[in-house]
Amino acid sequence: MKLAQIAQIINCRMTGNDVEIRRVAGIDEAEPGDLTFVSNRKYISHIPTTRASAIILGEDIAPVSIPSLRCDDPYLAFARALEIFFIPLRSSPGVHPTAVVEEDVTIGKSASIGAYVVIGRGCTIGDGVTLYPHVVLYPGVSVGDDSVLHSAVVVREECKIGRRVILQNGVVVGSDGFGFAPTKDGAFYKICQTGRVLIEDDVEIGANTTLDRAAVGDTIIRRGAKLDNLVQVGHGAQVGENSVLAAQVGVAGSTRIGNGVWVGGQVGFAGHLEVGDRAVITAQSGTSHDIPQGAVMSGSPAFDNSVWLRSVAAFPKLPGLLRRVRELEREIEKLKAAVSDNNSK
Amino acid sequence: MKLAQIAQIINCRMTGNDVEIRRVAGIDEAEPGDLTFVSNRKYISHIPTTRASAIILGEDIAPVSIPSLRCDDPYLAFARALEIFFIPLRSSPGVHPTAVVEEDVTIGKSASIGAYVVIGRGCTIGDGVTLYPHVVLYPGVSVGDDSVLHSAVVVREECKIGRRVILQNGVVVGSDGFGFAPTKDGAFYKICQTGRVLIEDDVEIGANTTLDRAAVGDTIIRRGAKLDNLVQVGHGAQVGENSVLAAQVGVAGSTRIGNGVWVGGQVGFAGHLEVGDRAVITAQSGTSHDIPQGAVMSGSPAFDNSVWLRSVAAFPKLPGLLRRVRELEREIEKLKAAVSDNNSK
Amino acid sequence: MKLAQIAQIINCRMTGNDVEIRRVAGIDEAEPGDLTFVSNRKYISHIPTTRASAIILGEDIAPVSIPSLRCDDPYLAFARALEIFFIPLRSSPGVHPTAVVEEDVTIGKSASIGAYVVIGRGCTIGDGVTLYPHVVLYPGVSVGDDSVLHSAVVVREECKIGRRVILQNGVVVGSDGFGFAPTKDGAFYKICQTGRVLIEDDVEIGANTTLDRAAVGDTIIRRGAKLDNLVQVGHGAQVGENSVLAAQVGVAGSTRIGNGVWVGGQVGFAGHLEVGDRAVITAQSGTSHDIPQGAVMSGSPAFDNSVWLRSVAAFPKLPGLLRRVRELEREIEKLKAAVSDNNSK
Repeated sequence: MKLAQIAQIINCRMTGNDVEIRRVAGIDEAEPGDLTFVSNRKYISHIPTTRASAIILGEDIAPVSIPSLRCDDPYLAFARALEIFFIPLRSSPGVHPTAVVEEDVTIGKSASIGAYVVIGRGCTIGDGVTLYPHVVLYPGVSVGDDSVLHSAVVVREECKIGRRVILQNGVVVGSDGFGFAPTKDGAFYKICQTGRVLIEDDVEIGANTTLDRAAVGDTIIRRGAKLDNLVQVGHGAQVGENSVLAAQVGVAGSTRIGNGVWVGGQVGFAGHLEVGDRAVITAQSGTSHDIPQGAVMSGSPAFDNSVWLRSVAAFPKLPGLLRRVRELEREIEKLKAAVSDNNSK
Repeated sequence: MKLAQIAQIINCRMTGNDVEIRRVAGIDEAEPGDLTFVSNRKYISHIPTTRASAIILGEDIAPVSIPSLRCDDPYLAFARALEIFFIPLRSSPGVHPTAVVEEDVTIGKSASIGAYVVIGRGCTIGDGVTLYPHVVLYPGVSVGDDSVLHSAVVVREECKIGRRVILQNGVVVGSDGFGFAPTKDGAFYKICQTGRVLIEDDVEIGANTTLDRAAVGDTIIRRGAKLDNLVQVGHGAQVGENSVLAAQVGVAGSTRIGNGVWVGGQVGFAGHLEVGDRAVITAQSGTSHDIPQGAVMSGSPAFDNSVWLRSVAAFPKLPGLLRRVRELEREIEKLKAAVSDNNSK
Repeated sequence: MKLAQIAQIINCRMTGNDVEIRRVAGIDEAEPGDLTFVSNRKYISHIPTTRASAIILGEDIAPVSIPSLRCDDPYLAFARALEIFFIPLRSSPGVHPTAVVEEDVTIGKSASIGAYVVIGRGCTIGDGVTLYPHVVLYPGVSVGDDSVLHSAVVVREECKIGRRVILQNGVVVGSDGFGFAPTKDGAFYKICQTGRVLIEDDVEIGANTTLDRAAVGDTIIRRGAKLDNLVQVGHGAQVGENSVLAAQVGVAGSTRIGNGVWVGGQVGFAGHLEVGDRAVITAQSGTSHDIPQGAVMSGSPAFDNSVWLRSVAAFPKLPGLLRRVRELEREIEKLKAAVSDNNSK
């Protein structure tokens, strides 16, 4: 396809000669015939050496020697360019003969139900839904229109999945929350977990992530939230709209994460917290305190990111500081002696 | 059901009028007709605004304006109240026609074997066991009476599961331990992992948690232990009776965790350690040292929790401390000059 | 089997009497008739109390009272001794009648395809491959000769698995990378993930580990690398030859880990980093910076391990240091007053 045509489809301004493009590729892997892109400024220095035939760039980047497609949001333009060449996986509509579909199940138009899928009694599957092979839905589950559940996903009883939701492989929705009442003999009494997990529209959940149901009340992942792989969301927790949780984050029970929150990888939240809208928590941080709206927090336990940056920069100097303070103590002793000596003259 | 009747079943003292109860609910979500509870003192302040018709409370909480059920252990009373209204998931006894059951398998009375379950040669399944759809048991596995294995659980060859054990979805029992002998050319020689994983009675294991087998000897999860989601237990490790491991904890090979130990989320233990009975390790801590019985440890690397609390409170003051010490050094230089000046007068 | 015969097979020097050996066992669990071993020096003190009939030891360990097998690499010798007695799990060659094999699939000689396996269109399965029950291969996957994929593994479309690769249960290969372009209204636009995951020869991947595909370019696990359980490898990341990642490590997108790198448990790498060959990153560390070849790094954020060891040893002293500096400030104020007093005399 000609670059000028791509420019039109993805709504960019073309500079340089029109060229034939066969593929979209990363800046270091690109070959002649490829269209590449720079959205992360870290890769600007790679532009002179790319072998790509053309490049998608922000309007603010200096002129380059190859044809470019300019726009305000090069990452979004790249995403759209990719779609031009990408042939997505397609599953044929219909119910595979090996699928086990129990009583009172409704399956929408053009849904695709793969091999060895199990759909429990009373489930509702929307139009255009894809259940890849080996998905298991316990009784009473609903899956909204155009959602995609990948192989080895399990959705437990009564949980509700919205529309256009994507669950990557191995996601567990609605496993029992970690709720036990300690007994006098040091053992634990299991509290039955009667709540549901509700996943709203346009959510994507990463591979092998687990979302627990609660004893009472619902665990909720709100519209547009994105959770990466191996994340844990505890019983009764909530993740707000368009919030982003990177891989291996843990959210303990009853904690409520607001809207538009960004959480770095391996962060941990204790239970029963409130995390305000648009807060940012950097990777590997942890907190057992509420986080105010818009705060940027780091560390374990977490505090203000700008103070944390200075504190961690100072940390390797701590052993030297201990030595210096010991030295100061000796100096002061000497001074005290000298001054007292002077005074007594 | 009348509140007075619930009081009798769950062994509480009723105050206020008898009312009709339809459901148990959380304090913020409760509606008229609901019974709610407070066990975490954090929620006492929510009592005046709850819409619930009645509340389960400790004997030590001040009188409230709605009918209450009083007892010494409101959390346990809540757990029992929940059961009155909860209709648990039931699986019909019998072996689903799609289950693959190999030779020499024994299946107990009223066990329920779901769709697409695979039971390897020589397995023994106790009375009242539920294997949900898509459970896989490798050869030689035994599962004790009344245990429940949820969909997508895999139990590897020769592993033993006790009675009344619950394995949430996606648990892997008995995957090969991470054992490799380095070779001279920088590669690794796989050590065959001949041990088993033994899970004793009354254990519950969370979704997508992994329990590895060892090269020699058994990995053991002792009676009553509770492991949350996405926990890793390495080859030959042991978790003691009634110990509790929160989500995303990692226990490296050969480490032995005692009885009644509490481990917070995302904690890491190096290999070959001993963790004493009733130790508490707070969230995100890590250690490569043994932990004494009853110790409360925090931090990475972990040390005594009370010292750690003061240390992390001091940490944000470290950059200021560096500045203050630099300032003191200058002051002392000035003082030394002044004193030496005085002395030479 | 006689100890002398084992010595010959595993290439060790025998000391003491020849004895009959029935099993290989750990030093604390061993019973009469067992051969045990010490490779970790921590267990040397256990030698006098072992009940084993013989022991594998390094040449550098002092003489012991039981027959010993001496060699330079006792861990490797132990690994080979284990194999003498171990009867590995075997799967019968052939395709189980319940397996679903789509069009254009090639299956090699003596491959074993278990119950309820699903093999998508256009897959290629090498000679001697074992796919345990419930493995799912999406279309276009290839699996090299003699590889073993355990139950509940999913390999997504177009991913390539090398020869002699072992994927433990629940591994997800090729789930969509966590790639979204933020839109002006605060939502996210999904970027289609067109890359593949390539796993080279002799790699082993632990249970429930997830390896994501990228928007463009391939995610690569190079020859001989070993990844433990619950590890996350992000879109477009690379793990070098013979590198070792312990459990629960997270590698964010586009990060390249060199050859022979050792990564401790629960370590986190930010995206777009370069980690040099033979670097060592200790458990629970985290970094958002490149790591030079051969460096040993610790902490979150990580810095040089030898400085870190001193810094964490100093950390519990920080509250005392704050008090001492406050005290010094008071002393200096007093001294200044005294000196100024002297001067004014």
